[in-house]
Amino acid sequence: MTSNDNSGAVAPAGSAPTGARPAARGLTGVIPPVCTPLTPDFEVDTGSLARLVDHLIEGGVDALFVLGSTSEVAYLPDRHRRAVLETVVGHVAGQVPVLAGAIDMTTLRVLDHARVAAAAGADAIVATAPFYTRTHPVEIDRHFRAVAAGVGLPLYAYDLPVSVHSKLGAELVLGLAADGVLAGLKDSSGDEGNLRGVILGRRERSDLGGFSVLTGSELTVDSALWMGADGVVPGLGNVDPHGYSRLYRLAAQGDWAGARTEQERLLRLFELITVGGTRMGISSSALGAFKAALYLRGVIAHPTTAVPQVPLDDDEIARVGKYLEAAGLR
Amino acid sequence: MTSNDNSGAVAPAGSAPTGARPAARGLTGVIPPVCTPLTPDFEVDTGSLARLVDHLIEGGVDALFVLGSTSEVAYLPDRHRRAVLETVVGHVAGQVPVLAGAIDMTTLRVLDHARVAAAAGADAIVATAPFYTRTHPVEIDRHFRAVAAGVGLPLYAYDLPVSVHSKLGAELVLGLAADGVLAGLKDSSGDEGNLRGVILGRRERSDLGGFSVLTGSELTVDSALWMGADGVVPGLGNVDPHGYSRLYRLAAQGDWAGARTEQERLLRLFELITVGGTRMGISSSALGAFKAALYLRGVIAHPTTAVPQVPLDDDEIARVGKYLEAAGLR
Amino acid sequence: MTSNDNSGAVAPAGSAPTGARPAARGLTGVIPPVCTPLTPDFEVDTGSLARLVDHLIEGGVDALFVLGSTSEVAYLPDRHRRAVLETVVGHVAGQVPVLAGAIDMTTLRVLDHARVAAAAGADAIVATAPFYTRTHPVEIDRHFRAVAAGVGLPLYAYDLPVSVHSKLGAELVLGLAADGVLAGLKDSSGDEGNLRGVILGRRERSDLGGFSVLTGSELTVDSALWMGADGVVPGLGNVDPHGYSRLYRLAAQGDWAGARTEQERLLRLFELITVGGTRMGISSSALGAFKAALYLRGVIAHPTTAVPQVPLDDDEIARVGKYLEAAGLR
Amino acid sequence: MTSNDNSGAVAPAGSAPTGARPAARGLTGVIPPVCTPLTPDFEVDTGSLARLVDHLIEGGVDALFVLGSTSEVAYLPDRHRRAVLETVVGHVAGQVPVLAGAIDMTTLRVLDHARVAAAAGADAIVATAPFYTRTHPVEIDRHFRAVAAGVGLPLYAYDLPVSVHSKLGAELVLGLAADGVLAGLKDSSGDEGNLRGVILGRRERSDLGGFSVLTGSELTVDSALWMGADGVVPGLGNVDPHGYSRLYRLAAQGDWAGARTEQERLLRLFELITVGGTRMGISSSALGAFKAALYLRGVIAHPTTAVPQVPLDDDEIARVGKYLEAAGLR
Repeated sequence: MTSNDNSGAVAPAGSAPTGARPAARGLTGVIPPVCTPLTPDFEVDTGSLARLVDHLIEGGVDALFVLGSTSEVAYLPDRHRRAVLETVVGHVAGQVPVLAGAIDMTTLRVLDHARVAAAAGADAIVATAPFYTRTHPVEIDRHFRAVAAGVGLPLYAYDLPVSVHSKLGAELVLGLAADGVLAGLKDSSGDEGNLRGVILGRRERSDLGGFSVLTGSELTVDSALWMGADGVVPGLGNVDPHGYSRLYRLAAQGDWAGARTEQERLLRLFELITVGGTRMGISSSALGAFKAALYLRGVIAHPTTAVPQVPLDDDEIARVGKYLEAAGLR
Repeated sequence: MTSNDNSGAVAPAGSAPTGARPAARGLTGVIPPVCTPLTPDFEVDTGSLARLVDHLIEGGVDALFVLGSTSEVAYLPDRHRRAVLETVVGHVAGQVPVLAGAIDMTTLRVLDHARVAAAAGADAIVATAPFYTRTHPVEIDRHFRAVAAGVGLPLYAYDLPVSVHSKLGAELVLGLAADGVLAGLKDSSGDEGNLRGVILGRRERSDLGGFSVLTGSELTVDSALWMGADGVVPGLGNVDPHGYSRLYRLAAQGDWAGARTEQERLLRLFELITVGGTRMGISSSALGAFKAALYLRGVIAHPTTAVPQVPLDDDEIARVGKYLEAAGLR
Repeated sequence: MTSNDNSGAVAPAGSAPTGARPAARGLTGVIPPVCTPLTPDFEVDTGSLARLVDHLIEGGVDALFVLGSTSEVAYLPDRHRRAVLETVVGHVAGQVPVLAGAIDMTTLRVLDHARVAAAAGADAIVATAPFYTRTHPVEIDRHFRAVAAGVGLPLYAYDLPVSVHSKLGAELVLGLAADGVLAGLKDSSGDEGNLRGVILGRRERSDLGGFSVLTGSELTVDSALWMGADGVVPGLGNVDPHGYSRLYRLAAQGDWAGARTEQERLLRLFELITVGGTRMGISSSALGAFKAALYLRGVIAHPTTAVPQVPLDDDEIARVGKYLEAAGLR
Repeated sequence: MTSNDNSGAVAPAGSAPTGARPAARGLTGVIPPVCTPLTPDFEVDTGSLARLVDHLIEGGVDALFVLGSTSEVAYLPDRHRRAVLETVVGHVAGQVPVLAGAIDMTTLRVLDHARVAAAAGADAIVATAPFYTRTHPVEIDRHFRAVAAGVGLPLYAYDLPVSVHSKLGAELVLGLAADGVLAGLKDSSGDEGNLRGVILGRRERSDLGGFSVLTGSELTVDSALWMGADGVVPGLGNVDPHGYSRLYRLAAQGDWAGARTEQERLLRLFELITVGGTRMGISSSALGAFKAALYLRGVIAHPTTAVPQVPLDDDEIARVGKYLEAAGLR
C-alpha cells in the first residue's frame, strides 16, 4: 500500500473547521464529483439528487464533491448551485465530508461562491486557477492566497488545464501547501509526472503531512494510489461507486493485482462516454452518458443535461445500457 | 468611405427595444469598452466611473460597452457588475446607447446577467461562446439562440478566441444573423479574413441590412472600416477617445489617408500596454496601463486593478506617462 | 498609394546577390507561392510546372516563390525539391526573381536546403522559425542569424504560426532587419496588428529602407498594402494571377476602391478551398482545390496532391469548376 | 510482473527482418533514445558516440533507439544522421536491436530516411504522424500505411503531441496494429489513460500478441509496466542506464516496491533538466543537461548541443554535477 500516512493529520491551528462535522483535511479514498440531476425544464431535481447521494454513500464513497465539472457547474446558475449545496449538505447530514466547487473566473467571484458554500455547510472549497483571463503564474499564486485568506475552510486546488488553459506545477502547489494556503490538490491534468513530483515533494517535507493529493484521472487510479496519491475523484464513480470503492479498498489492503483488474473493468465501462460520437462535444457525450446510466439504473428521474449541451437520443441512451449490461450493472 | 449604409437600419418588428432610449441596432462608430475604476479596497469607484463616462462622451464616442474584457468583467463579482450598470446607465441618461457584457460560462448563467442588465436599462447584450466547457459548434449555435430567446434586447456575439478558446466562423454568425438571433458581431479575434467574410456575406443578403459588424482590433480600425465594418470597440479608446472619434470621422468623410495617420499615432500610443514587462501577464499590464493613463490624465482617482492582477509599480506608471506625453495627451 | 519607397533600395555592401539576375531585395508586388504539379505516381510533373510558370508570368506576377507551404514543400522529398528548383529557375531564365523556401526543422537542415537552392540559382531564401522542437525566442533569433551567416543570399523570414507554433514578434523581426540578417518578412500569421508594427518600425528607421514586408494573407491584400506592405504572396494567385496583379496595380495607382472590389471578388473565389468538407483536412482541401482549378483551366496535366493527403473526388473537382465559372475564369 | 507475453511473438511472414540480427518485434525492456555527441564545431563525435553505446549496453539496456527527439534528430542534417546510423549499427554489431527514427514532415520524406536506415542495418523504424502540415486523422492513417508499405522493416508509431501537434488515439493505433502496419507504439504523449486503452485492447485481441507498447514517460515507468507496457524509452537512460535497467528487472521480478523506489530516485535525478531556467527553452535545458551529465561522467568528450540551442554555461553544468552527486553517479 502507499506509504503516506495522512489519516492522523492535524489541521493547522486557527484554520480548522469547527463543530461536529467530519474533517475535510487529509482526505483519502473515493470522492465522486456528484452529478446534478435536472428536471426536463432544467431545474435541479432535488429528489433525484438525494437519491444519488444515497446511491453514492451506499456505494461506499468517503466524501462527496459537489459543483465540480462533472456536476455541470459551468452550466448551473447561482440559484441552482445553492439548491445543490443545500440538498446535498442537508441530506448527507454529516455522514461524510462535502467538498464544494467554487468555480468562477477570478478571485472575488470565487470568493462569493465559497462564502455561499461555507454558509450552506460545506466542509471544504475546491477552486481552479483563473480562467477567461490570460493569467501569469504569479497571479495564480496570488489568486489561491487571496481565496484561502477569504474563506474559513480548507481549500483544494483544482488542476484542470483542459478548462482553464494553465497548469499548476509541482513547485507552485508545494509552495502553497507549505504556506498553509492549500489543504490539498485535485489533479485532473493527466500529467502523472508532475503529480508524482507533488507526491514525492510532500513526503520529503515533514510539514506537509496533512496535504491531500487526489487524482481526477479515473483510468489510472490504481497507479496513482501506487505512487502515493490519497484518493480519487472519479466522474464515473457516479455510475459505479461500488467499483471505485472496491478498487480503493483492494489497493489499501495491498492487493494491487486485484485493484488493477477492477481498474481495467472500469476502463471498459468508461467507454460509454463515446456514445454521442462526433455530433456533439465529448463533454456533452460524457455527461449525457453518466446521466443516462444513472437514469437507466433507476437512480435519477431524467437524463436531462443542461443547455446548450446536445442531449443524447434514444438510440445513444440504449447503447449506454449495453455498456451497463457488459459491466454487470443492469 | 465604406459602402454599407446601416445608419438608417430598422430593427425587425417585434424585437426592437422600446421606449425613448437610443436604438442599439445598426450601431456604428466608436464604442469603447469602459474601464471599471476601483477604489484601493477593490470596490467600484462610482465617482470615477461617472467622470470616465463624461470623458468618453465628451471625446465623441457613439455608444458605451460596459462589462467587457477591458472592463475587467472577469474580475468583478455580481454586485460590482450591478454597480457598474446602474452608475453608467444612470449617468448616461440616454445620451448614447449602453451595451452590457453578459460574460459567463454558459447559457443559463449568461441569461441571469442579461436579465440584470436589461432591468438596469442596458440597450443591448454582448455575449461570448461558452467557455470553461469544451464546446461543439452545434452547442455554440444552441447557446446564442437560447440567450437571444431569453432576453428582450438586441444580442451581439463577442468573438474572443484568446479567452473562450473557440472561434465564431462567418457561416455560423451569418446564419444566426439571418434568423434574427444576433443584432451584431464584436470581433476581437484578429482574424481579418473571416471578418471580411462576415462583411461581404451581410452585404449580399438583403435581410441583413441592420446587422452591425464591430471590430475590437484597435490597431487596424482604418482597414476594418475600409472593408465595411460599422464601428470599433477599442480598449485604448478609454485613454484617447478623441483619437478614435477623429479616426472614425475621417474615415466616414472619406479621408482615408488622414484616418491612417491617426491610426498609426494610436498604434504607437498602444505600446504603453507593455510597461509591465514579463513580471506579470500581458493582460494585467494592459489593463494596468489603461488605468494608469486615466489616473495620470486626472479622469479616475486610483489606478487600482482587481485581484489577483499584479499592480503596476511607480516606475511603470511613470513610463505610461511618457507614452502619454509622446502622444500629446499630457 | 503606400508611402514607403523601397524600389531604389540598395542592398548592404558585401551581401548583395551578384551577376545579372534580378535583385531579390526590396521586393514588391505579387509573388505567388508556386504549386508543385505532380504526376499520378507522385513525381514532379516538370512540363506542367513550366506551363504553370508561364501562366503566372503571363499573369503579371513580379517574382515567384517556390517550395513554400502552397508548393507542398512539406510533402516533397529532396530530389523533388531539386527538380522544382531546376525546372523553375531554368524556365524563368531571369525574367523575375525566384525565392526558394528552405523549409526544415532547424538551422543545419535549413542551411542544407538553402545551399542547394543557391547552387540551383535561386535569388533569395525563405525560412521559418524552428519547428518540431520547442523553441525559445532567443533560439529563434540565433537560428535566423546562423542561417543568414551560412548562405550568401538575401533571407526572408516566414512567419507561419499555424505550422511552426511560434510567432515572430515585430521587435524580433526589426532587430534582425537592423542587423542585416533579414532582407524581408513573409507574414502568414494573420496578425495584422503585429504586421503594422513591423511596417511602422521600418518606416521610422532610416536604415531599414530596403527591408521588404510581404503579406501571405490573401484576403486582406488591399488593406495590407494600404498599411504599407510591399507585396503579397497569395496561394490563390496560382489560380488567378491576373486578379492579384490587377489588385496590386490598382493599389499602386491609388485606386483603392478598385483594389477593394477586386479583393472582394477574390475572396469569393477563395471559398473553393472548402470543397473537401470535413472528410479531409482544410490543408488537403485547399491544396487539392488549387490544383483542381489549374487542371480545369488547362494549366497542369493532373490534379494530384502528395501523399498522405486525401485527393478530391470527381464531384468535389466539379464544384471547383463552379467557383471558376462564377469568377469568370472558365 | 506484467501479464502480456510477447517474448515468443513471431513476426508476420514476409516482413520479418532477416539474417542473424536480433528481432525488432515484440521488443521489451529498456530502449534508451541515444544522445548524439557533437564536436565543438557541430560534427558527429563518433568516438564519443561509440563510448556512449558501450556505456548503455554495459548499463544493461535491451535495445537502442537512435535519431529520436533526445538524439536531437530535428537538429541533425542528413549526413549527420547517416554518421549516427553507421557508427551505432557498426559498433553495436548485433548485440542488441537498433531502432532508427525516420523523423520528417510527411510520408515521402519519412520514407527516404527509412530507406537510409534500412540500408545502414537498422532493425526497425520509428515514425511520427505528419507535422508542419495540418493533418486530418484519415491522413495520419494513410501516412502510416504508406510508410509501412514502403519499408521492409518493423514500424513503430511515435506518439509525440508536443512536437507534432496531433495525438494517436487508441482506436487508430490498434486498427493499424491489427492490419500489420505497426509493430509497436512509442508513447511519449503522457496520456496514460489512452496508453492503457492500447494495452487492454492489445490483450483482448489474440492477433496482437506481438505488438509492443513502449512508454517514453520516464517518470512513470513502474506504473506503465504495471499496466502492461512492454518497455520504456527514457531520455534520462543516457545518464543512468543502470538505474532504468534495475527498475525494469525489479518490475519483471515482481518486486514492485523496489521498482517504485528506483523510479522515485530517478525522478529526483530528472530534475537536472531544469538547470537552464528561463533563459532558454526547456528542450535546450534538458538536452544540454543530459549531455553535460555524460560529459561529467566521462562518457562523451564535449557537452555541445546543436545550433540554435542555447548552450549551458559553466555554472549550469556544475549544477548538473550536483544532481549526479546526489544520485550517487559521481
